Amino acid sequence: MATTGQFITCKAAVAWEANKPLVIEDVQVAPPQAGEVRIKILFTALCHTDAYTWSGKDPEGLFPCILGHEAAGIVESVGEGVTEVQPGDHVIPCYQAECKECKFCRSGKTNLCGKVRAATGVGVMMSDRKSRFSINGTPIYHFMGTSTFSQYTVVHDVSVAKIDPVAPLEKVCLLGCGVPTGLGAVWNTAKVESGSIVAVFGLGTVGLAVAEGAKAAGASRIIGIDIDSKKFDVAKNFGVTEFVNPKDHEKPIQQVLVDLTDGGVDYSFECIGNVSVMRAALECCHKGWGTSVIVGVAASGQEISTRPFQLVTGRVWKGTAFGGFKSRSQVPWLVEKYMKKEIKVDEYITHNLTLGEINEAFDLMHEGGCLRCVLATHV
Amino acid sequence: MATTGQFITCKAAVAWEANKPLVIEDVQVAPPQAGEVRIKILFTALCHTDAYTWSGKDPEGLFPCILGHEAAGIVESVGEGVTEVQPGDHVIPCYQAECKECKFCRSGKTNLCGKVRAATGVGVMMSDRKSRFSINGTPIYHFMGTSTFSQYTVVHDVSVAKIDPVAPLEKVCLLGCGVPTGLGAVWNTAKVESGSIVAVFGLGTVGLAVAEGAKAAGASRIIGIDIDSKKFDVAKNFGVTEFVNPKDHEKPIQQVLVDLTDGGVDYSFECIGNVSVMRAALECCHKGWGTSVIVGVAASGQEISTRPFQLVTGRVWKGTAFGGFKSRSQVPWLVEKYMKKEIKVDEYITHNLTLGEINEAFDLMHEGGCLRCVLATHV
Ligand SMILES: NC(=O)c1ccc[n+]([C@@H]2O[C@H](COP(=O)([O-])OP(=O)(O)OC[C@H]3O[C@@H](n4cnc5c(N)ncnc54)[C@H](O)[C@@H]3O)[C@@H](O)[C@H]2O)c1
Ligand SMILES: NC(=O)c1ccc[n+]([C@@H]2O[C@H](COP(=O)([O-])OP(=O)(O)OC[C@H]3O[C@@H](n4cnc5c(N)ncnc54)[C@H](O)[C@@H]3O)[C@@H](O)[C@H]2O)c1
Ligand SMILES: [Zn+2]
Ligand SMILES: [Zn+2]
Ligand SMILES: [Zn+2]
Ligand SMILES: [Zn+2]
Repeated sequence: MATTGQFITCKAAVAWEANKPLVIEDVQVAPPQAGEVRIKILFTALCHTDAYTWSGKDPEGLFPCILGHEAAGIVESVGEGVTEVQPGDHVIPCYQAECKECKFCRSGKTNLCGKVRAATGVGVMMSDRKSRFSINGTPIYHFMGTSTFSQYTVVHDVSVAKIDPVAPLEKVCLLGCGVPTGLGAVWNTAKVESGSIVAVFGLGTVGLAVAEGAKAAGASRIIGIDIDSKKFDVAKNFGVTEFVNPKDHEKPIQQVLVDLTDGGVDYSFECIGNVSVMRAALECCHKGWGTSVIVGVAASGQEISTRPFQLVTGRVWKGTAFGGFKSRSQVPWLVEKYMKKEIKVDEYITHNLTLGEINEAFDLMHEGGCLRCVLATHV
Repeated sequence: MATTGQFITCKAAVAWEANKPLVIEDVQVAPPQAGEVRIKILFTALCHTDAYTWSGKDPEGLFPCILGHEAAGIVESVGEGVTEVQPGDHVIPCYQAECKECKFCRSGKTNLCGKVRAATGVGVMMSDRKSRFSINGTPIYHFMGTSTFSQYTVVHDVSVAKIDPVAPLEKVCLLGCGVPTGLGAVWNTAKVESGSIVAVFGLGTVGLAVAEGAKAAGASRIIGIDIDSKKFDVAKNFGVTEFVNPKDHEKPIQQVLVDLTDGGVDYSFECIGNVSVMRAALECCHKGWGTSVIVGVAASGQEISTRPFQLVTGRVWKGTAFGGFKSRSQVPWLVEKYMKKEIKVDEYITHNLTLGEINEAFDLMHEGGCLRCVLATHV
């Protein structure tokens, strides 16, 4: 391409400071170095981790930065030594890398690759520990190794999943975070079996994907719990069979669920990020085997607690990141499943806006009616 | 036998009140009713749960009672409908029942039988919700469904494991609690694989049995952690390969272990009952897969806590009761393993006393040199 090896100047939404509206700026995007890939981002959605870092509550948040991590695009150019993708490939950038070589990747026990974390955790690229984004010479930090709120971004090659070019990018961008997280929490982390009773706390995108995954796994009851009763109508379409609003009960919600299920649920999932709900999710599990998976991300410094007796009597407490999916290996498989209509994606998209409207999109996240808002970046 | 159907008057150590020395009394032991078994207890060891209830710190403790739950004996008589054991059978009373019929037993997921819990939890027998022990008409509560600090006791038939009559009862009494708890925590709850790095917090009987189980499972490193450095010499014989005394370090013990193991251990076991050690045991686990098992029993009301991030990044928090062993099915198998010299038992017995010396035996528990003290009851 004409741009190969050149700086690209393009639009990006820059977070200059915590909690100040993002600003659409002309950003210079450096060419990819060895082991890096420059991607033309076509569509990006917003997720809570973006909002959390933007809010300034994340003590590891760095500013100025370009947020965004749920997106899809096309490879523009690749750096030296990059063999697995080439210009023109359709891709999903993955905040969870997969190098297939590190201790984590080789363990066969986790999707948490360690290869580029030391760099992505501090907003830079690994080779020179510098950013590829700048505005008039001022570097702008990367975010989660993805920075998709930009028309072009640079990522490590271990963070790029190559997908079927026929898949609609304006839909499958969601397979970069929320939907796989929920599905994988059920399939990979909890390994829900057919006939299980499942409780899902929080019926946003992640919780609905948990419900969808549980339905696919053959769960006999899927109990949705949300403080917003309007969520139930939508949730039914994702597999939720019963709805409980904690506000309708005087008893603690864990007790309500234990009573409803003759002793507790087989699996529970916390998809909110609230530490007291995490406790309730564990304690509503059945003695002897109930397993609770923490999916929601709590604010920094907050702690979960319970009586150890809960665990000694057989409950298991787990968590999941990106649903345990190995990103480069499995995101393409999720795209295939979507193409075969085996998983939903379109149904999670409630709003479509443009990159220029990103501040409105952030406002929408706080509205009960919004699941995912997808931004077109090149309009 | 001559005593069948009769009250038996025998010696038992009665806890009249919390924290007051036990008193050897002449106790009347009623004949077993339907579904019950009267056992002549020949040897009983002491365990921390006895001491905990005796101390008065257990809010569910009931007095007066007959404590004791790690013992072996011979069936004296059986009540109506009891088919699986008969007078003369050598048995180990099991505080963890196994009915093979309840929701728990049928689940295939847990050893926590629910059949008699509602009765054993409040110190009585299930059929009439009364005690079989009395002194001049005053009922004395049962404890854990076993009450082995007595020359005769009555238990539910679902709480009796029939064992090889050749096995030495003065040794295999230990297979009623502490040793199986440690072995099973490794084999059943954690399922430690060959090559794993294991941390054991607390090197009493339970912790040493964890080490023994981990060695049998092929663990490559078994790191013992205890605040009493004298424990290491003994611990070596049970498989511990390295020793860490938290008092020798300024850093939190979880950090010491993470540093020692290039990122954390694969499995950790808390065998103390201290909630801050439980946290350390979780946090010294390797990101991505490390699993921590709570074996120690904390005092009532105490809580464990950690950051949810510990779980979201792949650590798993579990617990175990009686090591996950199904009592009636598996205690006889453990006895066989002992007879084949595949597991240690003798090595955990540091003291031998008589039932009349039980108060001294409780004092011994607080001494570092004591693992298990076995009391002969008929001398
Ligand atoms: N572990 C991971 O890899 C991962 C990945 C993506 C997202 N997440 C996290 O998952 C969580 C959910 O994400 P989302 O996009 O679905 O969020 P969302 O805000 O759309 O959904 C949260 C839902 O929880 C409900 N809720 C809030 N407080 C509640 C309470 N006390 N009791 C019951 N319901 C309550 C809300 O009404 C809402 O429906 C967030 O914390 C997000 O950061 C984690
Ligand atoms: N879950 C179950 O089914 C089950 C069954 C039996 C026993 N238990 C429990 O297991 C625990 C251990 O039993 P045991 O008989 O081995 O006890 P023990 O007292 O013989 O051993 C405890 C060891 O922990 C060490 N210790 C104390 N505080 C420590 C600290 N802060 N850091 C490091 N080491 C410390 C002591 O020096 C001692 O060596 C008890 O809590 C007991 O109630 C549980
Ligand atoms: Zn996300
Ligand atoms: Zn890797
Ligand atoms: Zn015990
Ligand atoms: Zn049962």
